[in-house]
Amino acid sequence: MNQFALEHIIDSAYSFPVSENEIVLRLRTAAGDIEKAWVVYESKYKIGETQKKELMEKTNTGRLYDYYSIKLKLEDTRLAYVFYLYDGSDYYYYSEDGATKGYDFTKGYYNFFQYPYINEIDIHKKTKWLSQSSFYQIFIDRFCMGDEQKDKSYINLKWGNKPTPKSFAGGDLKGIISKLDYIKNIGCNALYLTPIFKSPSNHKYDIVDYFEIDEHFGTGQDLKTLVKELHRRNMRIVLDAVFNHVSENNEMFKDVVKKGRESKYFDYFIIHGDKPEKEPLNYEVFAGCAYMPKWNTSNPEVRKYLISIALYYIKEFDIDGWRLDVSDEVSHDFWRAFRKAVKECKEDAVIIGENWHDASVYLRGDQYDSIMNYAFTKAALDYFAYNKLDTKGTAYKLNEILMRNTDTVNDMMLNLLDSHDTDRFLNEVKGDRKKLYSALCLLYLFPGAPSIFYGTECYTLGGYDPDCRRCMDWETALLPDNEAILLIKKLSEIRQICEFSFEGTVITVSDDERILYMKRCGKNSVAELYLNQTDKAGKYNNVEVQPGEYRLFVDGGEAI
Amino acid sequence: MNQFALEHIIDSAYSFPVSENEIVLRLRTAAGDIEKAWVVYESKYKIGETQKKELMEKTNTGRLYDYYSIKLKLEDTRLAYVFYLYDGSDYYYYSEDGATKGYDFTKGYYNFFQYPYINEIDIHKKTKWLSQSSFYQIFIDRFCMGDEQKDKSYINLKWGNKPTPKSFAGGDLKGIISKLDYIKNIGCNALYLTPIFKSPSNHKYDIVDYFEIDEHFGTGQDLKTLVKELHRRNMRIVLDAVFNHVSENNEMFKDVVKKGRESKYFDYFIIHGDKPEKEPLNYEVFAGCAYMPKWNTSNPEVRKYLISIALYYIKEFDIDGWRLDVSDEVSHDFWRAFRKAVKECKEDAVIIGENWHDASVYLRGDQYDSIMNYAFTKAALDYFAYNKLDTKGTAYKLNEILMRNTDTVNDMMLNLLDSHDTDRFLNEVKGDRKKLYSALCLLYLFPGAPSIFYGTECYTLGGYDPDCRRCMDWETALLPDNEAILLIKKLSEIRQICEFSFEGTVITVSDDERILYMKRCGKNSVAELYLNQTDKAGKYNNVEVQPGEYRLFVDGGEAI
Repeated sequence: MNQFALEHIIDSAYSFPVSENEIVLRLRTAAGDIEKAWVVYESKYKIGETQKKELMEKTNTGRLYDYYSIKLKLEDTRLAYVFYLYDGSDYYYYSEDGATKGYDFTKGYYNFFQYPYINEIDIHKKTKWLSQSSFYQIFIDRFCMGDEQKDKSYINLKWGNKPTPKSFAGGDLKGIISKLDYIKNIGCNALYLTPIFKSPSNHKYDIVDYFEIDEHFGTGQDLKTLVKELHRRNMRIVLDAVFNHVSENNEMFKDVVKKGRESKYFDYFIIHGDKPEKEPLNYEVFAGCAYMPKWNTSNPEVRKYLISIALYYIKEFDIDGWRLDVSDEVSHDFWRAFRKAVKECKEDAVIIGENWHDASVYLRGDQYDSIMNYAFTKAALDYFAYNKLDTKGTAYKLNEILMRNTDTVNDMMLNLLDSHDTDRFLNEVKGDRKKLYSALCLLYLFPGAPSIFYGTECYTLGGYDPDCRRCMDWETALLPDNEAILLIKKLSEIRQICEFSFEGTVITVSDDERILYMKRCGKNSVAELYLNQTDKAGKYNNVEVQPGEYRLFVDGGEAI
Repeated sequence: MNQFALEHIIDSAYSFPVSENEIVLRLRTAAGDIEKAWVVYESKYKIGETQKKELMEKTNTGRLYDYYSIKLKLEDTRLAYVFYLYDGSDYYYYSEDGATKGYDFTKGYYNFFQYPYINEIDIHKKTKWLSQSSFYQIFIDRFCMGDEQKDKSYINLKWGNKPTPKSFAGGDLKGIISKLDYIKNIGCNALYLTPIFKSPSNHKYDIVDYFEIDEHFGTGQDLKTLVKELHRRNMRIVLDAVFNHVSENNEMFKDVVKKGRESKYFDYFIIHGDKPEKEPLNYEVFAGCAYMPKWNTSNPEVRKYLISIALYYIKEFDIDGWRLDVSDEVSHDFWRAFRKAVKECKEDAVIIGENWHDASVYLRGDQYDSIMNYAFTKAALDYFAYNKLDTKGTAYKLNEILMRNTDTVNDMMLNLLDSHDTDRFLNEVKGDRKKLYSALCLLYLFPGAPSIFYGTECYTLGGYDPDCRRCMDWETALLPDNEAILLIKKLSEIRQICEFSFEGTVITVSDDERILYMKRCGKNSVAELYLNQTDKAGKYNNVEVQPGEYRLFVDGGEAI
């Protein structure tokens, strides 16, 4: 047995409660190394004398490791356990002290694994609507202009022309409202909007006033109407919370610039000197940009102020959650207070971080619900676009991504192929629409909620910012035979009918190593996706898939 | 290279800030597998174009793994990094995507490791006094009776007789006060007292009223005097917080028993029914004991109430910290609120959990400062008493224990050979005093703060509870030539002079595998401990150690 590969970490994605008397345990071993794995367990007060034993299931395989999982129903949630492994010739116990041939349960209290007690308040609860949503992400200035009456003097980009970092095309909230039926019709039931608050830029990530809707985008009344119209359609909305930094034109920062240490807002920012100076830069900012000073979220007053914004938009406008900009640079302490306040205000409001990296430490139920799943994005690009991952490598990678986080988090992940912060996916695959279709199937079937960036459905191209933020091509979007839209619509329907949850998910590769296979289980249905990105026909489960094609089955019947 | 063994987890004991611009990184590899390891790093905004590279040091070796460490000083704390490894023939990069032959830094933002930003509020700060303390743990009823005036009718154990679970011997706070010079004189500068609040039992872990000192032990005035007398001697005191459960005789629980759901305290407990019933037991309790109902710490009112107790004893009595009973069964949520309140009230008050298992998830700076280090206890027993670990195995195990937690936590660990909850260490080694002396050396030199259980210094024996809670043997304790006391005193002096901190600690085994070697670094001094528990003389660094002996050097000179 390969002892180096064994891993189990208590109170982590390897051991987490899913209800007040259910816990999921995972165990990592070297791939193909173990024939059978059991968990041997009991209440910690009984395990010295008596033990229960249950066989675990090998549920996930990565490049190096297999993962075994089991969900235990407990009477006493003071769980003590060790693993029992059979490698084909020998049996081993695996405890906090590693692998051993024997195990003395009477001294187990020193080194068994344990989940000491399931406290209801520590359970990360799944927000069902999030796991069942299909998101549509809108970069507002480029989506649709609906307010024909507004002062258009700021608009400097003709709709359809190539944007620059300083372009304004005129998109607004009224435009979005006018397109809600369109969005609903293509199968999306949730919106994620980039920031809408008063800001000098087109992207509005440098906010001047959080309590005002930017005049280019509309008014508070427009936001109210938007939310009402969404909810009327049984749709949801998530706004973008830029709480890491603010615009230098924010009144508080301006006061600090003016008064230095005399300003009552001096400690709202992190200034290495008596007043903020740009040359040399002596205050903390976002991404080296002097015009976006970083909030000092360690300051309780700042914490209170920013949280009051989050609550204001929930209470006054009934929004359904927040996407957190640059969330990984803000303190854990802040997000903990933020979560408590938000969930108290609206229990099913969701919190989605922008962490591009392993964020498991933020995803234990005390901070966010999930993140924008850029690890998935990268895997999809490596498979479809860059040829960095072959079929097998992709299956491994997707399994590895899933094993980073709990079942609960996996079901709430915001999965995406691209966003306002990346090249367009269709650009990355050099305009190959068949690749886009296969990728959309993967996106919509992968555990979590898919999010498509506006324009994906009408084949919008574009490289990195600002090129990925082109104006919506309404002409193509409204063509009746748009294949991408038909596909997205169908995929959304399947998601809605099946109501997938993470349990039972299988991602693997065919023996011929050509087909990426994914199985998802819903309440009463099973969906199966077969992707072939090789140049030869492949076969799995007697399903043949031609090069570059996908096939999708629901309950055994071909769905598309 | 053994890829299975590689491990680095962001924002964990593998990557943690120690100040606003310093971070410690650790990397795990298979033992002996790698010749050199570097960290390649830069600000995340620069790493695409330019990288710095620093060699890491192999600092710790466990049974299976080596650990490499480095402390980086950062200008921009938005740290991005990968590891670069040389195994004697090939070079590898190691990122979130695992080991690869090459690495594309321009796409690194998808899979480099990162510490996104050091937020001051998330840094776990070391409480220096804790790391420099030598603790003396007192089970009060058995230590010393000082109040000769009190009603002694409850006393049912003649001092020195064998205790039963229901014995009362008469020890009290006045007794402790009368022995402070003794305690200080044997080298201890901090007390940890088992509970002192109103309770029917001798151990007082079933508390009836947290706001009253148990009448057997004394009064609030006695506690005030005790703390004052301690502080006058530059000593500290940590009390025992039993916040997991309470006595069934507590007024709130009694109210619930009486009124059921009508009681305003009904939700203070976790009751599966309309009122608490013992047969069958329908409410949550500690350890299956119906007389110790569990608090519902998910209830904000309970949280507030229990925290008010913690603050009361800090504010009114100026105690220096809390040891948390059964802390692993209380919610993370509770301990986070608890920590915030306690540290706000007294910044250098310490919080020490009772977790017998890997508690790293509680030790990230948001919950406790440290725990009672029972993993160390187990290793010491396996080495000195049970023969389960040979010299090499012990060195490995001690290194593994250290690698569970951050440097910060390691420096604050409460290390112990035994307690009121274990057999006496001297019992475990069958009365072998030489083993005790060697173990004390290990205890006092190991990173963290040593805690000796009252009576250790006078060779008190005793098996598991209640036998480990025998009456203090003052006759032996006060003998002038008590070797254990002389040793403890000397060891405490060395700790006080050297002011060890975790950095630079070496624990290893001699080539002849007979000597366990530990090196500790202080501000200006180095201490070196050599232990030999084999039956043959051993040699390391030209220091010869006879079987069963220890040798201890400070700055090259033999210290004892």
